[in-house]
Amino acid sequence: MKVTFQIEGGSPVIMECNAGDNLLELARRGNIAIDAPCSGNGSCGKCRVKLVEGELESPQTRHISDEEYAEGWRLSCSSKVLGDCTVLVPDIASAYQSRMKTADLSSPQEVAIFDACQSQLKQSGIRFENKFRAVVLTLAEPTLNDTMPDNERLTWALEDALGVETVEIPFCVMVRLAHVLREHSFRVCVKGELRGDTFRCMEICAPEDTAIVACAIDIGTTTVTMVLTDLVTGKILAKGSSGNGQIRYGADVINRIIEQGKPGGKKKLQDAILKETLNPIIANLCKSAGISCRSILRLSVGANTTMNHLFVGVDAEPVRMEPYIPSFFHWEGLLAQDLSLPASPLAPVLIAPNIGSYVGGDITAGTLASGIWDKDELSLFIDLGTNGEIVFGNRDFLMSCACSAGPAFEGGDISCGMRATDGAVEACTIDKATMEPTVSIVGDKDQKAVGICGSGIIDIISELYRCGIINAKGLFVREGDRVRRDHHGMGRYVLAFESESETGREVSINEVDIDNFIRAKGAIFSAISTLLQSVDMTVDAIENVYVAGGIGSGINMKNAVNIGMFPDVELSRFHYIGNSSLAGAYAMVMSDEASAKTAEVAANMTYLELSTYPGYMDSFVAACFLPHTDRSLFPHSVQEL
Amino acid sequence: MKVTFQIEGGSPVIMECNAGDNLLELARRGNIAIDAPCSGNGSCGKCRVKLVEGELESPQTRHISDEEYAEGWRLSCSSKVLGDCTVLVPDIASAYQSRMKTADLSSPQEVAIFDACQSQLKQSGIRFENKFRAVVLTLAEPTLNDTMPDNERLTWALEDALGVETVEIPFCVMVRLAHVLREHSFRVCVKGELRGDTFRCMEICAPEDTAIVACAIDIGTTTVTMVLTDLVTGKILAKGSSGNGQIRYGADVINRIIEQGKPGGKKKLQDAILKETLNPIIANLCKSAGISCRSILRLSVGANTTMNHLFVGVDAEPVRMEPYIPSFFHWEGLLAQDLSLPASPLAPVLIAPNIGSYVGGDITAGTLASGIWDKDELSLFIDLGTNGEIVFGNRDFLMSCACSAGPAFEGGDISCGMRATDGAVEACTIDKATMEPTVSIVGDKDQKAVGICGSGIIDIISELYRCGIINAKGLFVREGDRVRRDHHGMGRYVLAFESESETGREVSINEVDIDNFIRAKGAIFSAISTLLQSVDMTVDAIENVYVAGGIGSGINMKNAVNIGMFPDVELSRFHYIGNSSLAGAYAMVMSDEASAKTAEVAANMTYLELSTYPGYMDSFVAACFLPHTDRSLFPHSVQEL
Repeated sequence: MKVTFQIEGGSPVIMECNAGDNLLELARRGNIAIDAPCSGNGSCGKCRVKLVEGELESPQTRHISDEEYAEGWRLSCSSKVLGDCTVLVPDIASAYQSRMKTADLSSPQEVAIFDACQSQLKQSGIRFENKFRAVVLTLAEPTLNDTMPDNERLTWALEDALGVETVEIPFCVMVRLAHVLREHSFRVCVKGELRGDTFRCMEICAPEDTAIVACAIDIGTTTVTMVLTDLVTGKILAKGSSGNGQIRYGADVINRIIEQGKPGGKKKLQDAILKETLNPIIANLCKSAGISCRSILRLSVGANTTMNHLFVGVDAEPVRMEPYIPSFFHWEGLLAQDLSLPASPLAPVLIAPNIGSYVGGDITAGTLASGIWDKDELSLFIDLGTNGEIVFGNRDFLMSCACSAGPAFEGGDISCGMRATDGAVEACTIDKATMEPTVSIVGDKDQKAVGICGSGIIDIISELYRCGIINAKGLFVREGDRVRRDHHGMGRYVLAFESESETGREVSINEVDIDNFIRAKGAIFSAISTLLQSVDMTVDAIENVYVAGGIGSGINMKNAVNIGMFPDVELSRFHYIGNSSLAGAYAMVMSDEASAKTAEVAANMTYLELSTYPGYMDSFVAACFLPHTDRSLFPHSVQEL
Repeated sequence: MKVTFQIEGGSPVIMECNAGDNLLELARRGNIAIDAPCSGNGSCGKCRVKLVEGELESPQTRHISDEEYAEGWRLSCSSKVLGDCTVLVPDIASAYQSRMKTADLSSPQEVAIFDACQSQLKQSGIRFENKFRAVVLTLAEPTLNDTMPDNERLTWALEDALGVETVEIPFCVMVRLAHVLREHSFRVCVKGELRGDTFRCMEICAPEDTAIVACAIDIGTTTVTMVLTDLVTGKILAKGSSGNGQIRYGADVINRIIEQGKPGGKKKLQDAILKETLNPIIANLCKSAGISCRSILRLSVGANTTMNHLFVGVDAEPVRMEPYIPSFFHWEGLLAQDLSLPASPLAPVLIAPNIGSYVGGDITAGTLASGIWDKDELSLFIDLGTNGEIVFGNRDFLMSCACSAGPAFEGGDISCGMRATDGAVEACTIDKATMEPTVSIVGDKDQKAVGICGSGIIDIISELYRCGIINAKGLFVREGDRVRRDHHGMGRYVLAFESESETGREVSINEVDIDNFIRAKGAIFSAISTLLQSVDMTVDAIENVYVAGGIGSGINMKNAVNIGMFPDVELSRFHYIGNSSLAGAYAMVMSDEASAKTAEVAANMTYLELSTYPGYMDSFVAACFLPHTDRSLFPHSVQEL
């Protein structure tokens, strides 16, 4: 029998199958992109398709309303094929990509935060220098009396121009040498890297093409962001981001590792991040900057340990399985050509070093960017990504740990969640009497609500709790116009009714969302307190708190403390530092010293494995309330109520 | 309209075409292998096809007998399509491959000559040592208390085992590390190269797979030969050869360069040598030696300048065009992965350095193997390949030149020519009275004649001339049973009648063959005399003559002098040294010192461009007689008559 997948905005795909085949599995076999962050276990409700013709064995779940079910909407993970049928696959890629579109560095505030990070590093004595060079050479044209072969002619000229003793001409240059020299009448630009007394050629091109650039990439589990930067001036030439194409194989690293362990899985996951995600963005950035991809002479990647492994294409299974041994923490030796990245083939790809299975390069790069490694005072660095990672310490020591916070801070796992981009509710207050919200939305002043980003969720939950609309467990305890319940009785708070929203769909937050978020914030708080406890310290020791991640610059630290997400310290000590993984990756790719310093920071960082740490689970359970079961930890929050 | 190519031993190919299309061009467009050493100018007569159905506009040429023409045989280069037709394409590849099959090192004499070369090099002080190593390691299995990542675990063990300070783990090892370590319970073999204080890993594999091997390759214009050798013991594990797959784009380097200059040509020519020729042989040799191709850690190539360029895939056009500037003479930096060779990806590919457009790495490797660079006496080194190259000198100086001798010495350009393999007439005497031949045939004592190899042709021409059957111009001047003429009146001498031959086809030599050969030997002799003249010396200065090439160990030096091919010096001074390009490539791949010495020899060698050298053409014309217009140069030959 056959299933016809009608793909919104694409060509239909017809798949042969047998009765009883799972529809999501079938779609995956046909490389049909269906969003399935939960990897098909029925919990996320995102893998919707619409049955157009024929039949499916598919129960109605809590994710599908009666009207939707009547319209034909089904969860593909819960559907079995009964016979020939046709299903409509929503263009999840474009919906998803637009949901995840350029968040980082898209606002002047975020650019200012990014720039401040780099200035801070320079003040810490890191020189922003590298060894990449572009040299324009005018060679003597050969004659019958000057018959030196092309490579010697080039070598002599480079030795002369750069004062080096040796010149390496690799295959990728040799193979174009004769042609480029003659096309440009022996006046050419050569790009490469100085290594001591040696110059390694990387590119040969027209004399006017003197651009040498680098690409700094943050590979998040959910979102990928990158900047293209001039290797000479450090100027950012272009920036872009999109969802991580691996999302269809699961929202979290564990599901991705399981998927990559299946036959052909490593290739599939690697293709999803390389071919589907990174390569198109790099190509776009180069196009918008008006340069050739081959002008990219170095790349850097800030990514967690699993993302690093899937990116390189090495088996990530040991990362997940006891005794949790990754292939590498710190590894040098990756070249663009190894992964067929659109760049100069010999461009080194710097990977910010991992320090544990669940504290990766995004955190070491982020720690570099935070500057806490250079301070006398004790600081806390919190990265709110798909996982939450915490680093605590100063120039003398650094401790780190990771907790499974899930993607709630980035708007994942939340029914109306989104990144802090146009249309995101990023801040909110609620009138205690009328229960009416006042929201702040990212975008123009006429922008209507599309969804809610992390900072908005914090505000809403804090306000709902302050107004007594939800209780300490996050359940709705007041009724009203804005509080609605579905046919299962599940409550939700409506921020924007259908008529008020950008999309015509209600923007709201429900009890499942709140529960997800409370568990996420509980994970963060308990991780912080456990980490402090491990070094025999308390909240009082914290001088500064640096908060990074896709939660958005609109984060209200007071509300984050009020809901018991961050420890109750003086608000002036909190600093939002944006995408610190990207900021660190940028510093690494631009500066040889920053790169060396990141390795040093990583080598000196101690990793605390929370899952086996005594008392962590109790601490987590206690933190899964608003603000906490032990209210004495949050004197300001309690005072507020 | 359509032409159906029925390919002997293959699937038919149907090509769309227009009236008037050239059949050979059409076949090339369809990637159909038709042997066309003359590149389609009608001179070689090898591009035969048989018309099965339909019509072709195709004149009868001297290469096609009346009966053959009646049977449907046509030269494809001279055929125009008139309408739908079907032609049979003989399996030229297999015919060609068998004609060219393992010639080098196939006899005990040749192996002895090869071994003597290597011994000679060792006596000259060249140490046969290299830096490639295989190390078997037993690593501690990781535990919850020993969570070092895989790459550090491996690095520590290697530093310990080899006493090195740094270990490089490149992508190709990293990507397999986790899997191989766990598959073999952390007991593995690592292969790589010592570079000062650094060990560069190249392979990681099962602990029992400790083979580390190298591949030495002679890429001739006509024939390719290689040996697989153990990098530790130097033992030859397997050897093989075949025709150079580029032959269909022309027999000589000039035609190949023209072909590679056409759109897509570089790729086509490179595919022909790599994918069609080298890769299958390497795979076969590895199979017969029972090792994985990935155990090949180094390769070396002895090849002329054009073959080097086409092999690497760099534009060879400037080699041919004034001012004759190759991309490289000496170039280090090529890796197996650059050409997707079946070997360890990072295996270096050593290319014996070129010293001019027409004196390439086959000659520098051959000069190394000849040992003349280490002698006080003046020696002549003559390589009889598709071109002829001459080197003259001693430890103080080396002069070299090249002449377009064509492929006659290897059996090319000769109607019954073949390499010195089974069935080749390798020696011959003729009874002056009866004109009956006595032949010596390569192979078992019952072996019948298949064709004539280079050494046989020398003997036959020498004997025909001595017996007065041909004159000094190579034309038949006596008649008899063995002397036949075709309907154009062209004479030929029959060595084996149809009934006497292996194939049922007459084995003979005709006036065109003799003329081709006389021009070839004239080119060699005039090159030698011009080279000597350029350093103000004469034949008397020559202490030793080393003859190399596919002409075969059966070469009769006396006859070669008699026909005026070699200078008339004392016969005991002549030495046949076999395939010196292969012998030199073998030394280079086994021995770092041999490789360095080859570079030194190349750097010290002076190249004499004959084509512009005053008097060379006159000298050549004077040498195109038996033995020479100036008989005083060949006192022994004249005495013989």
